[in-house]
Amino acid sequence: MKVDRMQAFSDGVYAILITILVLDFNVPEYRAGHLLAALVKQWPTMFAYIVSFLYIGTVWLFHHDFFQTLKLTNTSLNVINLVMLFSMTLIDYPTALVAHSLTVGNVADMRVAFIYYDLVALFISLTFAWLYTYVRHHSELTKMKQDQQHFYQAIKFDPIRSVSIYGLAILATFFSIWLGTFLLLAGIVYHFVAYLRLSKSMRHVLKASK
Amino acid sequence: MKVDRMQAFSDGVYAILITILVLDFNVPEYRAGHLLAALVKQWPTMFAYIVSFLYIGTVWLFHHDFFQTLKLTNTSLNVINLVMLFSMTLIDYPTALVAHSLTVGNVADMRVAFIYYDLVALFISLTFAWLYTYVRHHSELTKMKQDQQHFYQAIKFDPIRSVSIYGLAILATFFSIWLGTFLLLAGIVYHFVAYLRLSKSMRHVLKASK
Amino acid sequence: MKVDRMQAFSDGVYAILITILVLDFNVPEYRAGHLLAALVKQWPTMFAYIVSFLYIGTVWLFHHDFFQTLKLTNTSLNVINLVMLFSMTLIDYPTALVAHSLTVGNVADMRVAFIYYDLVALFISLTFAWLYTYVRHHSELTKMKQDQQHFYQAIKFDPIRSVSIYGLAILATFFSIWLGTFLLLAGIVYHFVAYLRLSKSMRHVLKASK
Amino acid sequence: MKVDRMQAFSDGVYAILITILVLDFNVPEYRAGHLLAALVKQWPTMFAYIVSFLYIGTVWLFHHDFFQTLKLTNTSLNVINLVMLFSMTLIDYPTALVAHSLTVGNVADMRVAFIYYDLVALFISLTFAWLYTYVRHHSELTKMKQDQQHFYQAIKFDPIRSVSIYGLAILATFFSIWLGTFLLLAGIVYHFVAYLRLSKSMRHVLKASK
Repeated sequence: MKVDRMQAFSDGVYAILITILVLDFNVPEYRAGHLLAALVKQWPTMFAYIVSFLYIGTVWLFHHDFFQTLKLTNTSLNVINLVMLFSMTLIDYPTALVAHSLTVGNVADMRVAFIYYDLVALFISLTFAWLYTYVRHHSELTKMKQDQQHFYQAIKFDPIRSVSIYGLAILATFFSIWLGTFLLLAGIVYHFVAYLRLSKSMRHVLKASK
Repeated sequence: MKVDRMQAFSDGVYAILITILVLDFNVPEYRAGHLLAALVKQWPTMFAYIVSFLYIGTVWLFHHDFFQTLKLTNTSLNVINLVMLFSMTLIDYPTALVAHSLTVGNVADMRVAFIYYDLVALFISLTFAWLYTYVRHHSELTKMKQDQQHFYQAIKFDPIRSVSIYGLAILATFFSIWLGTFLLLAGIVYHFVAYLRLSKSMRHVLKASK
Repeated sequence: MKVDRMQAFSDGVYAILITILVLDFNVPEYRAGHLLAALVKQWPTMFAYIVSFLYIGTVWLFHHDFFQTLKLTNTSLNVINLVMLFSMTLIDYPTALVAHSLTVGNVADMRVAFIYYDLVALFISLTFAWLYTYVRHHSELTKMKQDQQHFYQAIKFDPIRSVSIYGLAILATFFSIWLGTFLLLAGIVYHFVAYLRLSKSMRHVLKASK
Repeated sequence: MKVDRMQAFSDGVYAILITILVLDFNVPEYRAGHLLAALVKQWPTMFAYIVSFLYIGTVWLFHHDFFQTLKLTNTSLNVINLVMLFSMTLIDYPTALVAHSLTVGNVADMRVAFIYYDLVALFISLTFAWLYTYVRHHSELTKMKQDQQHFYQAIKFDPIRSVSIYGLAILATFFSIWLGTFLLLAGIVYHFVAYLRLSKSMRHVLKASK
């Protein structure tokens, strides 16, 4: 089975997911003449929006590049991809919860919201671990030649690293909400850096395989 | 007429449908400091979300695989496909009703919500019965050779089986809401199993036809 | 410029438009145990939903078939297409207004809602008239040969007929809301019939041009 | 890396963005029999809708045409494109704010809403400046030959012009809300005119490069 229709469906889900994040912005209740103050108070929504946009965007870039190393898909890969998309769609709700709890400012609720976000991020990274493991053991699906399989070896620990970061973020949140937030942001920035690395090495290998 | 633009449009509808399910998650009303308890009370929304995501995802996999057996489309098939998409879009609302009625916990309302869901599922399966029958009688649209038409024979009873399961689920709901729910879930799991079977047999036949 | 990316964008807009119609279904306010009665009262939402789904679906089928007669696009055609999409997106709101006014049952408001719907439908048909006229005078964009231009001659009055039906529907609504509704539905059914005719004649001509 | 999947993802985001604008239309609160008056009062929503639809539509046309001059993409271009899409998604919220503040009619709030819109428009134009500069310096990504690079020279000041217009619009808003609005609209109309010019010159050059 060709990989293109699965990519198109995934692109659709990512595009919708990243775009409906904007529905979290709602015209606030405010007294006439005080819109500016009301908007400034919405900074947590903007903050959560930027973080989740960066996150979903990075995962899309990953998906985009990784699936370029594949020439075929099969039933198992379609199912894995569907579970990945499922995990991604869960990110919208904790985004709203983080924004809301930061607005209210109660520390216990902020902890709950951030841990929810961390758990979803952890779940997403686990589905990537699953995807990487599956593809590494099914070389018939990939465009890469036998001697290029080191590519998959090189990235196989990336998801485990992410899982560790998000696990640490959850633990840290119990002691300090700010340390937990820092680790969560570090995890997302790590994704972006890991993406740049994967993208570079992938292009190198694909060029050689021609 | 080529089949690809119809697939693209269908992929779009499925992608949107499966993604806007997340709009059912709304930040609950809660007293500061009690977000966790409020989120735990939202388990019916998560339950309904998982079920409908699995359902729509499975139907998309079906659609994806089945349309790969086709090389052409025509006006009738476009119309059948549109009716199938119509039936699919109806699933979002009973998903919200099931979540809401489970939250409130009134048995009479839960019955109504589940039967609504069952009726939509039954309608969806009927449109699949229509699709299968149509394609079986229009071999000019398919990539399969004459002696491979047994493929369509093999799957022709699948939609009828689904219709029976959902019919039983409706009846059972009047006696026991839990038995009804069990049958509904069984129907959706059945779809997934039937998909794996169809996918395997289809790949087998398409390979032979090359 | 190739026509395919414009088609992909248009397919996206149609797919989203037809799918977010379901957001008109909201869990109603109801006393526990009376969900069924509350759902039955929502029949206007289901009615408006079915009508608009049929309408948007038919216009998509039109778009799908008509653009298959084109081999190229240009700036003007891209702009015309964007105006067509603009007119299409306007249909969601009067759909909600028709559903709401039928629920409340005030005749003056129903009239307003139906006329709004009629005006949007009339606008949509005018954009089709523009599209047909443009393509008829730019034979360099079409796959059809010179002697097949009668195809565009044959359909050129279709949009004018639609405009007349919706114009009549508006007038009729002032005398009888039901006659107006009947004419509106007739207009949408007319689109579907016109589509079947266009689809048939187009396939005939395209086959001959190979 | 091929440019097509990035285009598909971008088309998806634009299509969703332009379509969910309609979610700003909500059935107003009104006394039975007074729907018409309530709808007339919604003119700011229609006004803001038309402006933003024209804006997003024009940017899509730009995107569509400009990416046709490219034959390849790379990691940097993917990231630039993602930032462009991010800036685009921000336009939905100020659209709602403009509509709301015009409805309420408080001048201070209107100023805030328009400046928010201007700032997003300014940000969008800056991302275009980034895109143009990047592509001008990476001729390996483009289909154009060396002697055709004057194409990118010709358009390189367009984003700076837009930034100036929106900057002026922000300043003007402090003195006169109507002058500010006029400049904002002028900026969007300027985009459309600039698009027509770019589209024409691009087609000319691409034809010559065959």
